[in-house]
Amino acid sequence: MTVNAVAAPPRPIPAARYRERLSAARDLVAERGLAALLVGVGADLRYLTGYEAMPLERLTMLVVPADGPVTLVVPRLELTPARACPAAGAGLVELLAWEETDDPVVHVGRLVRASTGRAAPAGAAAGEPIRVAVSDRLWASFLLRLQEVLPEARFGLGSAVLGQLRIVKDADEIALLRAAAHAADRVVAAIAGGRLIGRSEAEVSREVRERLLAEGHERAEFAIVASGPNSASPHHEASARVIEAGEPIVLDIGGTFGGYGSDITRTLWVTGADPVHRPYHEYLALFAVLRAAQAEATHAVRPGVPAERIDAVAREIIAAAGHGLHFIHRTGHGIGLEAHEEPYLVAGNGEPLREGMAFSVEPGIYLEGRFGARIEDIVVCTADGPDVLNQAPRDLFVVTGE
Amino acid sequence: MTVNAVAAPPRPIPAARYRERLSAARDLVAERGLAALLVGVGADLRYLTGYEAMPLERLTMLVVPADGPVTLVVPRLELTPARACPAAGAGLVELLAWEETDDPVVHVGRLVRASTGRAAPAGAAAGEPIRVAVSDRLWASFLLRLQEVLPEARFGLGSAVLGQLRIVKDADEIALLRAAAHAADRVVAAIAGGRLIGRSEAEVSREVRERLLAEGHERAEFAIVASGPNSASPHHEASARVIEAGEPIVLDIGGTFGGYGSDITRTLWVTGADPVHRPYHEYLALFAVLRAAQAEATHAVRPGVPAERIDAVAREIIAAAGHGLHFIHRTGHGIGLEAHEEPYLVAGNGEPLREGMAFSVEPGIYLEGRFGARIEDIVVCTADGPDVLNQAPRDLFVVTGE
Repeated sequence: MTVNAVAAPPRPIPAARYRERLSAARDLVAERGLAALLVGVGADLRYLTGYEAMPLERLTMLVVPADGPVTLVVPRLELTPARACPAAGAGLVELLAWEETDDPVVHVGRLVRASTGRAAPAGAAAGEPIRVAVSDRLWASFLLRLQEVLPEARFGLGSAVLGQLRIVKDADEIALLRAAAHAADRVVAAIAGGRLIGRSEAEVSREVRERLLAEGHERAEFAIVASGPNSASPHHEASARVIEAGEPIVLDIGGTFGGYGSDITRTLWVTGADPVHRPYHEYLALFAVLRAAQAEATHAVRPGVPAERIDAVAREIIAAAGHGLHFIHRTGHGIGLEAHEEPYLVAGNGEPLREGMAFSVEPGIYLEGRFGARIEDIVVCTADGPDVLNQAPRDLFVVTGE
Repeated sequence: MTVNAVAAPPRPIPAARYRERLSAARDLVAERGLAALLVGVGADLRYLTGYEAMPLERLTMLVVPADGPVTLVVPRLELTPARACPAAGAGLVELLAWEETDDPVVHVGRLVRASTGRAAPAGAAAGEPIRVAVSDRLWASFLLRLQEVLPEARFGLGSAVLGQLRIVKDADEIALLRAAAHAADRVVAAIAGGRLIGRSEAEVSREVRERLLAEGHERAEFAIVASGPNSASPHHEASARVIEAGEPIVLDIGGTFGGYGSDITRTLWVTGADPVHRPYHEYLALFAVLRAAQAEATHAVRPGVPAERIDAVAREIIAAAGHGLHFIHRTGHGIGLEAHEEPYLVAGNGEPLREGMAFSVEPGIYLEGRFGARIEDIVVCTADGPDVLNQAPRDLFVVTGE
């Protein structure tokens, strides 16, 4: 197989956005009475600064205080890439480089205390504990050290501050999500149009990853190829199982493009040359229900509708067909700088959808030991209803696979 | 460019190893007086169970109690892959599936308390706090919830238990590290022998990633292509900069193969057709010093030698040539299920090397704004001294790049 890179490169988020985001984050830190928000490597850091730091055991941490400058604490040998990140390039953050034999957590502790005007740890007598928020995915190794260095602090989650910012995507983010979706659409088309019979799931999965990269993705994050009975396991990993004629394949693939996620699922049925291997009628009936559920759930997307309502719409249709117990996961998850983020379309989440929210709509039906099916699109909530980013057809892809 | 998959697939770790590892971990949990070790998704979980769970906001957690069965708490929709993991397949762990609307942290809390024989939270009057260790990379979102659910517990890091196990690789692990290294060696050879001039760093980086996958890696984790002045930044990300004749390229690439890391750095000099673009004498002199430092540091590897001594050997040679201030990072890091893990070859780490430890030996010299160079191999400490896994030549690769 030859895969040639064809995609246009992603259009980066403009520096002005980082200014807006940092300013909004600081306002929220102050509003919530926090001493500081401490952001480790990951999506929150990328959101606020554009800095794509590697997840290292060496601490990189953005300190967003209620008061005083925003500081990016970085290991000295990461100073060059840190300086080159959009927020640093635009002068929005100060850099503090620590040396290979320093304890960087002590630097962070000092910055937090500086922002509260406290020079030393406050004992019980010193009054109220200070409150600090840390990014949700900060590692325990850093959090436990911070708790030691700041014993006077109560720690909470950064999503309390950043969640409401990140959950609504701006036009630049939606453009990247759309480009990511279109790239993934093309990979689905290529896989569905290629040879499948006689290849292992793992081989096809590897081709998916190569094609995602060739389509301009920086990373191919997952490439589920679940054939035959494996299609009944929602998060099946591609295995050594060889694909045969007369069975379904659930293809659930995605990665990042300009930092933003793609995530699409389509279901294929591989026939080979012999018409005896056409889809079972039972499978076609099941798929028709799923198709209707996915379409109707998507159609229900509009501002003000509770997130759980989208889940309920899909679930009611599937349950009405007698498959309620076979739809064993929520209907969707938000997507952006992370593959799974708020809002979750799940029972119990009454949060109303807002314009600019982006999420998957992906009901599935799984008959354990036999077969399953899933359809997934990325959908943006707009004032006018759903904007479906994926364009690949949603019908069962009946292909020869030869 | 066409990349054809050629590599033999990785040989998986046998189930008997997971039995040994779980048993050793339990013994250590009991020995240290811990109520339990709580292991989230990631390398620690893969080490103990072979389970390659996706890093999801839905909690997956292995509970290794001092007493009672080892339990893997998983979201219901991950039950099929969880059951299929080596440790579950061999009956070494019990599975506890939680439903989409449950609070899984409460399940974990109950298991921890069951292991201590306590049915309810212990107040101050109930005596000593219990002690719980969590995996080092557990997310803050899970750790803060665990701290709420187990207010009577003191939390420490799982590396205190697992570090000493994971730091020594068994023969099956070394075989995977060696296969990973050889695959990466072949990618270096292909890149060094291919066209470089007129291509951007990002294009070459993408080719590296594709070739790592084609060589059997499951993941291409990094592909640093640092050309010209960018070679002076140790962790430069591949950029849009176009490679020209008459400049160096630091190529630092790696990923995972059968779950184990590859990580190799070689330095190239691209000449084009015109001999005027041969390496500067100054650069050749710098590189010769680096080459000697890397060779001598590698040669110093043997059981009983403190980790920091390997760093010192490289540093002394580089400093003697007047480049002490231009070697701005430690000499190496352990490698295994994680790209960076113990032991770190850094000043202050007096831990003696042991047979079976695997780590990088990677000194570098960086003249900011001008150029830099680095050489990196993965080395295993054996009774007889260093076993260098990489086989690619370590000299400056002087290539036409056309």
